[in-house]
Amino acid sequence: MRKKEYFADSEEASLLYREEFRDMKTEEPEVAPSPEKDKFEIIGKSTSRIDGEKIVTGRAPYTHDIKLRGMLYGKILRSPHACAEVISMDISQVQSLPGVKAAIQLKKGRVTYAGEQVAAVAAVDEKTAEQALKLIKVEYKSLPFAVTEEKAMEEGAPQVRKRPNVQKFNEYTRGNIDKGFKEADFVLENTYKTAVEIHHPAETHGSVAKWEGERLTVWDSTQAIFGVRDGLARALKIPASRIKVIKHYMGGGFGSKLGINDYTVAAAMLAKQANKPVKIILSRRENSLCVGNRPSSLQTIKGGVKKDGTLTALYLKNYTSGGIGRGDYCSEPVVDLYKCPNVQVEEHSVFTNTGASRPTRAPGHVQGTFALEGFLEELANKINLDPLELRKKNYSTKNQGDKETPYSSKGLNKCYQLGAEKIGWKRRNKRPGEGNGKVRRGLGVASQIWWGVGRAGTQADVKLHPDGSVEAICGTQDIGCGTRTYMATITAETLGLRPKDVTVKIGNTEYPWCGGSGGSTTTPSVAPAIRDAALKAADYLKKMAAEKLKAKPDEINITKGKFSNKNDPVQSIGYKKLIEELRKERKFRREKVFHGEYVGRPSGFAYNTFGAHFAEVEVDVETGKVKVLKVVGVHEIGRLINKITAESQIIGGITQGVSTALFEERIMDNTTGNVANPNFRDYKIATSLDIPEITPLIVDTVDPRINNLGAKGLGEPPRIPPAGAIANAVYNAIGVHVREIPMTPDKVLQALKRKEVD
Amino acid sequence: MRKKEYFADSEEASLLYREEFRDMKTEEPEVAPSPEKDKFEIIGKSTSRIDGEKIVTGRAPYTHDIKLRGMLYGKILRSPHACAEVISMDISQVQSLPGVKAAIQLKKGRVTYAGEQVAAVAAVDEKTAEQALKLIKVEYKSLPFAVTEEKAMEEGAPQVRKRPNVQKFNEYTRGNIDKGFKEADFVLENTYKTAVEIHHPAETHGSVAKWEGERLTVWDSTQAIFGVRDGLARALKIPASRIKVIKHYMGGGFGSKLGINDYTVAAAMLAKQANKPVKIILSRRENSLCVGNRPSSLQTIKGGVKKDGTLTALYLKNYTSGGIGRGDYCSEPVVDLYKCPNVQVEEHSVFTNTGASRPTRAPGHVQGTFALEGFLEELANKINLDPLELRKKNYSTKNQGDKETPYSSKGLNKCYQLGAEKIGWKRRNKRPGEGNGKVRRGLGVASQIWWGVGRAGTQADVKLHPDGSVEAICGTQDIGCGTRTYMATITAETLGLRPKDVTVKIGNTEYPWCGGSGGSTTTPSVAPAIRDAALKAADYLKKMAAEKLKAKPDEINITKGKFSNKNDPVQSIGYKKLIEELRKERKFRREKVFHGEYVGRPSGFAYNTFGAHFAEVEVDVETGKVKVLKVVGVHEIGRLINKITAESQIIGGITQGVSTALFEERIMDNTTGNVANPNFRDYKIATSLDIPEITPLIVDTVDPRINNLGAKGLGEPPRIPPAGAIANAVYNAIGVHVREIPMTPDKVLQALKRKEVD
Repeated sequence: MRKKEYFADSEEASLLYREEFRDMKTEEPEVAPSPEKDKFEIIGKSTSRIDGEKIVTGRAPYTHDIKLRGMLYGKILRSPHACAEVISMDISQVQSLPGVKAAIQLKKGRVTYAGEQVAAVAAVDEKTAEQALKLIKVEYKSLPFAVTEEKAMEEGAPQVRKRPNVQKFNEYTRGNIDKGFKEADFVLENTYKTAVEIHHPAETHGSVAKWEGERLTVWDSTQAIFGVRDGLARALKIPASRIKVIKHYMGGGFGSKLGINDYTVAAAMLAKQANKPVKIILSRRENSLCVGNRPSSLQTIKGGVKKDGTLTALYLKNYTSGGIGRGDYCSEPVVDLYKCPNVQVEEHSVFTNTGASRPTRAPGHVQGTFALEGFLEELANKINLDPLELRKKNYSTKNQGDKETPYSSKGLNKCYQLGAEKIGWKRRNKRPGEGNGKVRRGLGVASQIWWGVGRAGTQADVKLHPDGSVEAICGTQDIGCGTRTYMATITAETLGLRPKDVTVKIGNTEYPWCGGSGGSTTTPSVAPAIRDAALKAADYLKKMAAEKLKAKPDEINITKGKFSNKNDPVQSIGYKKLIEELRKERKFRREKVFHGEYVGRPSGFAYNTFGAHFAEVEVDVETGKVKVLKVVGVHEIGRLINKITAESQIIGGITQGVSTALFEERIMDNTTGNVANPNFRDYKIATSLDIPEITPLIVDTVDPRINNLGAKGLGEPPRIPPAGAIANAVYNAIGVHVREIPMTPDKVLQALKRKEVD
Repeated sequence: MRKKEYFADSEEASLLYREEFRDMKTEEPEVAPSPEKDKFEIIGKSTSRIDGEKIVTGRAPYTHDIKLRGMLYGKILRSPHACAEVISMDISQVQSLPGVKAAIQLKKGRVTYAGEQVAAVAAVDEKTAEQALKLIKVEYKSLPFAVTEEKAMEEGAPQVRKRPNVQKFNEYTRGNIDKGFKEADFVLENTYKTAVEIHHPAETHGSVAKWEGERLTVWDSTQAIFGVRDGLARALKIPASRIKVIKHYMGGGFGSKLGINDYTVAAAMLAKQANKPVKIILSRRENSLCVGNRPSSLQTIKGGVKKDGTLTALYLKNYTSGGIGRGDYCSEPVVDLYKCPNVQVEEHSVFTNTGASRPTRAPGHVQGTFALEGFLEELANKINLDPLELRKKNYSTKNQGDKETPYSSKGLNKCYQLGAEKIGWKRRNKRPGEGNGKVRRGLGVASQIWWGVGRAGTQADVKLHPDGSVEAICGTQDIGCGTRTYMATITAETLGLRPKDVTVKIGNTEYPWCGGSGGSTTTPSVAPAIRDAALKAADYLKKMAAEKLKAKPDEINITKGKFSNKNDPVQSIGYKKLIEELRKERKFRREKVFHGEYVGRPSGFAYNTFGAHFAEVEVDVETGKVKVLKVVGVHEIGRLINKITAESQIIGGITQGVSTALFEERIMDNTTGNVANPNFRDYKIATSLDIPEITPLIVDTVDPRINNLGAKGLGEPPRIPPAGAIANAVYNAIGVHVREIPMTPDKVLQALKRKEVD
């Protein structure tokens, strides 16, 4: 049994993430979905984004683009102190500045990180709002703080919250760890360190709030329009039924835009006070301080292996820091990914006086996989086994952490095979670091397990109009993955039309309910719901066509705009003609709405997604610089929906993974308690020059149970293995493992020194 | 059999009106609706409008109030000629005027009335747009015209359309009219005349059109958002799925805002050309010219009666003019209202070079009832019978014109009884004109039959939120009758809540389908649909409450925020508590939508509404001035939904009826071919000083079959009898019937002269 302890006052989004996206109940449906065996004409092929032209020509409206009549601009005053008491605050002076229309105090008592919001103003333009912030007088009593894990873990360190800074939040045991170590031929123990990362989506966070009487409309750059709606209802103490949240387009979120944000509530409060719409857009600096981050980790793994490669024991101790929020569960790869009878885990959260963590694309797994996969690499070397063989040796068809439940489908072996072929696995150094010269090459592999199942209860509508036009409607949001396109694709496939024939409507809480886009759940929730609705629409049309063709409804095929009799394909009627005739016969005089739902999947199976990445790197042993040359990312996600966007997901995940491996790290200033690099000059991310050749590969299968399409999610999986695969390739190149990311040149050089010592 | 001939190119709205609202098929439902016998707590009582405060404080947004960023203002150039060929048009000069952003030519070939649109421009403000119109050069060749019926019916009159000016469009026969006359003891023949009326809603017509890429949003002051959407789709040749039409609030329509309008299409075209939103608001003058009117009528009735009051024959010949559109069916009261075995009708439309007619609150019936009821008054006098007794004598429980189909319910006798009591019918002059003096008093009565049934297929949703809040959603539009309020009332009643607990959403084509608001169909369409949805929501909650109370779902009562066990009322759980517990138990974590529909009613019955008005007037026999002192309006509409708004409907109908009786008349200038009174200085309407004491009374019954509430519509019925009742009261006062409305002093004096001659 995995034991869980939630911090009652932890960041809502983190909690929600875990509860909503990972531990989703299987919600046994009355009729289990059985994905179609039919070959598809559009699904699984490459379909360009139906909104691509709009996006690349700048016509797609993002929250940043929303401008309403009479709209004011809000700015937020933030604490400069990492820890302080607000002794007094005077906001009365701001109204003396012409153009200032509203001001609110947001904080009393203690602030616990630099960047925490304390007050907000709204004015006719941004400049005036910024000037107004300077007129707010706040008297602080500054207090001792701890902004790094090291400091926070010291004895006598300033206490960040109302409980000790170090909190155990996860324990897990299966088998007997000591017995496992005894059975091992080799036992190894290493410690891995990962840095705090900031999500930094291209579009910074922002909201526009507008009241009409007692009703509130919010345009929000969010991954969860319904979550924002319900969060606003709670924060403002008004009924959810009086709030509408809209999101047309979004420039990335990666978890930082899940759930309600303080500034959204502030925008609504300012708008109420001013009786005008208010827009608040955070700066890049604010994005660095207060909208979440990926917790650091300090993971010690001790593991045992037999000579033949059989894992006998895995132990993980983790210290993870999510600022004033909770750290990440990093142990899941250790618990679930490989067959191992004896596993023990303990995880501790370390509070620091920094902004609260938030789920960051594959939370915990990026850190945990880097550690586990690096550990296995060294273990394989110990027993002189090909590291890929070690992974295959401990392959499991059952979910170890979930009571040995069999996986509904698992294509990881196929991923290994395809990836090894593509990268040329045989080219790797048989002995790590066996190469010579200033620049050394190496190859590495890392595997991945994730969820990516759908949320039962997701709704979608397909609407047929008597003019033959079709709508696909769902209250989901496209967080950049191409949701509109697959909704069009699936609807078109089901009705024998082209994607461009379908008008897609998403991003509005007035549309059918759909959960937040996180946990790789959106495709396996929305796709089956829209498929269900489209199938119902198709059933109606087939019935009508059957009457015309004097056939039975189940004898009718729909394809390429035509209904035909399966038994006698000459007997056919065009889609447009059928609609026109029905309209003339007054049988189809007004729009028909078909309600679809994702009903859930059978229990008794574990539903997971799998993948393996293969990396090739060059390491300059004199400068310590790592260059990633190539990454092959292979994923098994059940049925492929759209090749082009699935490949984009893999390319994006690898791009971010390279950035994690080599560059990203939030640095805290121990003296001032502030973030030292709250901008893109000092916070490094991978640029186009750093991105390697990326080969995305997909194992296109059909999960037989998960939903009516047999499709799983792909949002997070490709984000998980790159850092591990790259670190392992570096190990393969230089013969020493760099057990800390980002693998900046100094750390590579340090590792090379360790090698000399070893 | 009633024979109908539609003019293929007649005004779409007129056609739609008749087809959609009157001749609605009964659409036999699978399960016939049986209205609840339960006593209601809120339904049938007086509930103030939930949007009343918003409206009276000016915060309710009307189309006139819509202002969008960058919005342009459109103006339309209209023909000054009643008939002309457009020889050439040059719109190229308008772009030389700074601020002009778009210009389009709308007309080629022949214009057929003064006011017809020929071109349109959009500019940054209204003044610039008006100036721009002057830069459009149009060369016309003016042609002979006929703007009055008299002129149009002359031999050799200019031909208005491509067929002769006089067109028979309706013939009806039952029994044998000659036999009927032979059986009569008395036969009478009179001719009645009614003027062309303009609808003149308080809010003039207008639209705002905005494109986002290929999608169009239109804010429109309309009675039919779906009709406008579908009309735009046809006019612009784009899919209906790409158009959204919104109407928040509207300042009256009375039929003139049914269906698509030319100016709405023009706004969309200008917006497309300018790539900016465009607003077009018509002036009062434009409202007088080109958005419809009530056709005039010239009705000759010949009828036979036995000494005992039994009607033996009714013959009607009608000439009705709807400009370039069709005249009204004025014969329906003659055909349907009273039992009469021998009826014959012929109706002719007379084309004139004036704007096309459009359904005007109770089209045809206002004119037809004035004539028929006035005729009966004189007939009763002929046989020396109380005119109310004459009506009762010929009472029918079957629809005469519809193959003697029995009425599902008919409460007209009750209306007679209540109204006669209330007005003090015994006070009437036993002999018409028996009074003396300068100012004479009189009482009159008139009856009414109308449709007012619902449209099968109307959809509505009730949405329950896990915070306990409730939405009632329907794509209907409130044309001023209180739709939001009854949607809240019915939902609240069904769920044991208060109307203010329900958030109502209407007026958006993205909501569940509902037809246009005309023909008194909205309440009997929307009310049962929302009731159906609310009952489904209640079923869900009852089931949940039953589990808590360890009872069966059908043992649960919902009332006043509480679920209780019918058998043991002490066993109860509050609404809020139930919701909260379900939420905590994770059984109710996200909104639940319950889809409702009005499924139709059983065939084999005639569904009609009935009413009787009683008027008391004073006539100054020296000046000819009629003063209406009192009108009692009594209506049978099945189940009463909201007393306060139903009474408002009656008060509004009577107010307009008084205006029709005494003041309203569009006057054409025979010399110029233009409307001579396109403003409120010259076109007279009743003002507050003219409005009598009005007593609205409702016979609150339950139609046993029409829908799940047993409710019929009340939009048009109270508009029908006032002119007839007032004319009959005038007759009762002065002893001579004024057979022409408006009964201006000159016509009263003329009639008094006729009396002297008689």
